[in-house]
Amino acid sequence: MVAEASRRDFLRSVGITGGAGMLYSAMGALGLAPVPDARAEEYRAPQSGDFALTGRSGRKVVILGGGIAGLATAYELGKAGYDCRILEAKDRPGGRNWTVRDGTTLTDLDGRTQTGSFSKGQYMNAGPARLPQSHVTLEYCRELGVPLQVFTNQNANAYIYHENSAALAGKAIRWRTAKADVYGYVSELLAKATDQGALDTELTAADKERLIAFLQNFGAIKGKADGFAYTGSDRRGYSVEPGAAFEEGTVLGPVPSLSDVVASGVGQRFSFEFGYDQAMLMFQPVGGMDAIPYALARAIGQGRITYGARATEVKDLQDGAEVTYEDAEGRTRTQRADFVVAAIPPMVMARVKHNLGAGITAALKYPVATPVGKIGLEYRSRWWETDEHIYGGITPTDMDLSTIWYPSYGYQGRRGTLIGYYNFGANAVAYSELPHAQRVGRAVSQGVKIHGDKYRTELDHSFSVAWHRTPHIEGGWVGWPSQSGPEYALLNKPAGHVYFAGDWLSHVIAWQHGAFTSARKVVTDIHERVMAG
Amino acid sequence: MVAEASRRDFLRSVGITGGAGMLYSAMGALGLAPVPDARAEEYRAPQSGDFALTGRSGRKVVILGGGIAGLATAYELGKAGYDCRILEAKDRPGGRNWTVRDGTTLTDLDGRTQTGSFSKGQYMNAGPARLPQSHVTLEYCRELGVPLQVFTNQNANAYIYHENSAALAGKAIRWRTAKADVYGYVSELLAKATDQGALDTELTAADKERLIAFLQNFGAIKGKADGFAYTGSDRRGYSVEPGAAFEEGTVLGPVPSLSDVVASGVGQRFSFEFGYDQAMLMFQPVGGMDAIPYALARAIGQGRITYGARATEVKDLQDGAEVTYEDAEGRTRTQRADFVVAAIPPMVMARVKHNLGAGITAALKYPVATPVGKIGLEYRSRWWETDEHIYGGITPTDMDLSTIWYPSYGYQGRRGTLIGYYNFGANAVAYSELPHAQRVGRAVSQGVKIHGDKYRTELDHSFSVAWHRTPHIEGGWVGWPSQSGPEYALLNKPAGHVYFAGDWLSHVIAWQHGAFTSARKVVTDIHERVMAG
Repeated sequence: MVAEASRRDFLRSVGITGGAGMLYSAMGALGLAPVPDARAEEYRAPQSGDFALTGRSGRKVVILGGGIAGLATAYELGKAGYDCRILEAKDRPGGRNWTVRDGTTLTDLDGRTQTGSFSKGQYMNAGPARLPQSHVTLEYCRELGVPLQVFTNQNANAYIYHENSAALAGKAIRWRTAKADVYGYVSELLAKATDQGALDTELTAADKERLIAFLQNFGAIKGKADGFAYTGSDRRGYSVEPGAAFEEGTVLGPVPSLSDVVASGVGQRFSFEFGYDQAMLMFQPVGGMDAIPYALARAIGQGRITYGARATEVKDLQDGAEVTYEDAEGRTRTQRADFVVAAIPPMVMARVKHNLGAGITAALKYPVATPVGKIGLEYRSRWWETDEHIYGGITPTDMDLSTIWYPSYGYQGRRGTLIGYYNFGANAVAYSELPHAQRVGRAVSQGVKIHGDKYRTELDHSFSVAWHRTPHIEGGWVGWPSQSGPEYALLNKPAGHVYFAGDWLSHVIAWQHGAFTSARKVVTDIHERVMAG
Repeated sequence: MVAEASRRDFLRSVGITGGAGMLYSAMGALGLAPVPDARAEEYRAPQSGDFALTGRSGRKVVILGGGIAGLATAYELGKAGYDCRILEAKDRPGGRNWTVRDGTTLTDLDGRTQTGSFSKGQYMNAGPARLPQSHVTLEYCRELGVPLQVFTNQNANAYIYHENSAALAGKAIRWRTAKADVYGYVSELLAKATDQGALDTELTAADKERLIAFLQNFGAIKGKADGFAYTGSDRRGYSVEPGAAFEEGTVLGPVPSLSDVVASGVGQRFSFEFGYDQAMLMFQPVGGMDAIPYALARAIGQGRITYGARATEVKDLQDGAEVTYEDAEGRTRTQRADFVVAAIPPMVMARVKHNLGAGITAALKYPVATPVGKIGLEYRSRWWETDEHIYGGITPTDMDLSTIWYPSYGYQGRRGTLIGYYNFGANAVAYSELPHAQRVGRAVSQGVKIHGDKYRTELDHSFSVAWHRTPHIEGGWVGWPSQSGPEYALLNKPAGHVYFAGDWLSHVIAWQHGAFTSARKVVTDIHERVMAG
């Protein structure tokens, strides 16, 4: 980091203060290579003007895969006039960014076909569903005019449901209640220990006083005279809502014991929302996550994307590269280009014939795909809103459905679509082995434990996806045994005229941000090469 | 509470299990008085069918004040055919539920006039701005077809700014960073104390093990071998965002010391979001909070509301009541009715001439009005989103502006309107003594400390309200020295044919829920009286 900082300081010191854009322009005009170190802080899209002093121009690029990485590559290179073509095996853009609606079809690798039958306006985001505030994905939404609304990642009224905990098992506990009790008891314990001098080696007298004042506020505990006891508070919620005249409300009770609260495991859920990528506020495109790939596809130009085109061979050549693919009609075709960008999953790319060397194949096989499943359940009524006052948010469980998500759109409408499971690993495999109807049955029989019979009786339509059994995708995402090893490094540089892109080549795997930044890196690498060439 | 429970149990035991609606119908048919105790659990609106067996019909009711309580009273009584008339002193419905847009005018009690000049689509909710999930206000939005969107009450990317704290003063600290540090150090301290046996009288061996496991997760602290030390984590945020290839990101640093974190006072802010009424998720009507009063006014029928009508006298009569008022043209007029509902602020009602007795006047003067101020600042760009990645949420401060609110609508649009102060008590009085331009200057000079020069240079339009200096309202809300005393009880029953309604007659003061439930209570009381009459 010191070296990077020094370099930036140096560039600033020579008067280049207009950000990376200015920097690139200046460097380009001077015939110098751009400075990759600046990229971490600011990306500059290629522009046709970049070629003005060079006599060069945008080249032809064939991109395998019309997921976010492939689309973003074409979109960014297109800004400088590169002639980009995307070969996409499926019949739509987006890859895992996929919104299921009425009429959406899926035939999985086991040959099972589902067709979406959701009501008008109802949908499920089968892949990515939430956008953190800091991710570059939001910048693309702004640039492309994709309207956003809040994604409800946390809700104090949603539940935590543990049926296997050492205490309070099988009891749906609202997040607000769980927090009130855990924070209450934690505060009581720490205030006692602090007051009794158990932490005197850690704390000054002033620290102790301030810490105890904080804990009284944080835990809503009693004062020193009452042993800093936690005895509950209205933060738990009410069994009778406060209202007019003499209705003061009835605070939810009774308060479980410290032992039971700790043994219930509810506190283990809290850190989810402290995560850098999971903290509120989060966002989603209005009308479905696929607004992003469709906006990218429109910006690229539909004619540049060939759907139903499955790559069968990639050849690096002396002065370019060549892709052979099978088109939607089953014909074998070939595309020649200056560069190829492989923006498909590594385990899928590993099976494409190529002349890039055995090291590339081995590297492509190195990351491990994660099984991921998701089901959308459309209900005839929004009982979670009317009966349980849950407007969005997530209920985590220790059942194999993992989490239930309440919808972040269509509040107070007639119908609504929950996510009935979103799970990984063994749980996702277990569901994926079942035909769709049995997945529904299994998920519903668990949801009933939390929400009662309505979870079954109000159900109308459903759709499930098992990403690891989905053609051309074959996983929810991949994990690298190591991102410091030679395999990761190898795929992060070109193999001749062939580049690799995807969230799997980033440190933000399973987020669109990873795909976008990976695309930006490849775009910058190609543009630099062309500019230097 | 025991008596109430017994009564409900009794009613259930005699077979009345269909909820309060069934109960009321059954009791009505039997000629018995309804059971007020059930009301806390379920409200049943009067219906014209209620009169079917009685030969009675809805009466004439004059309502003083077209705020939420007055509107809800007319709306609910109107369902059973009562002939309701609202006399509203202002030229609009809603009372404190007021959305300021381009052209909105306000002349305050000091004779200063402001006219809103916000751009198209920009607005500020000058009064209530957020709706909790459990409040009956959401039910009215559903019933009236008022569409909702998320109100962003908490945001991990917003700041906490303390300029007078004992440490870290004048440093804007993001909520996510503050939580990571406070929870980290709290976890370290409690894990140490627990591990060292300081809490062995409180905790079993199993408790201790589970508690320490929780703290490791909750605080992202190191293990026992490393003394459970908190040394920071990516929950703090990043100074360089993780991205493609080799960009792992740079976690924000350095981590301040335990002493400094505790002395900074940031932790004292956390409990705000644990509050029953303040926890996410919260909601707002799309397009402005005043969608609620305007929807109520439409449902009531515009002809039933007389604007510019200021009550000057209320007389209880043998068989009804009479209101004298000054109309918009300054003429004195009189309205006779079976009942009058006074749904205006108590200190305003206290000045209306009446024959209800000195005890009523004294009771009306008993609650104390709270000064409240709010300013809307419209900016030419949404720099908080583009430059600081803050999409909604609130920054609390220890300056006299109190809090800055980032808008919960219009994400990624061109312009946006912040709330530049929302303050109470002495701070609100201090701002209200200034002319508007000076209020802007004072608020902006403080906001600049957090957000830099853009807070001044990008500012375009503004509007401020001081509720305590606003005609016919005269306060943000009122507080009762006691709600257990005779004054509160007196106003919660009719003075002859005159009833009182408002959030100030509830245990949910300063929320529309209080106004709605108070209206429901008065409506039920009147309807019972008519039905029994």
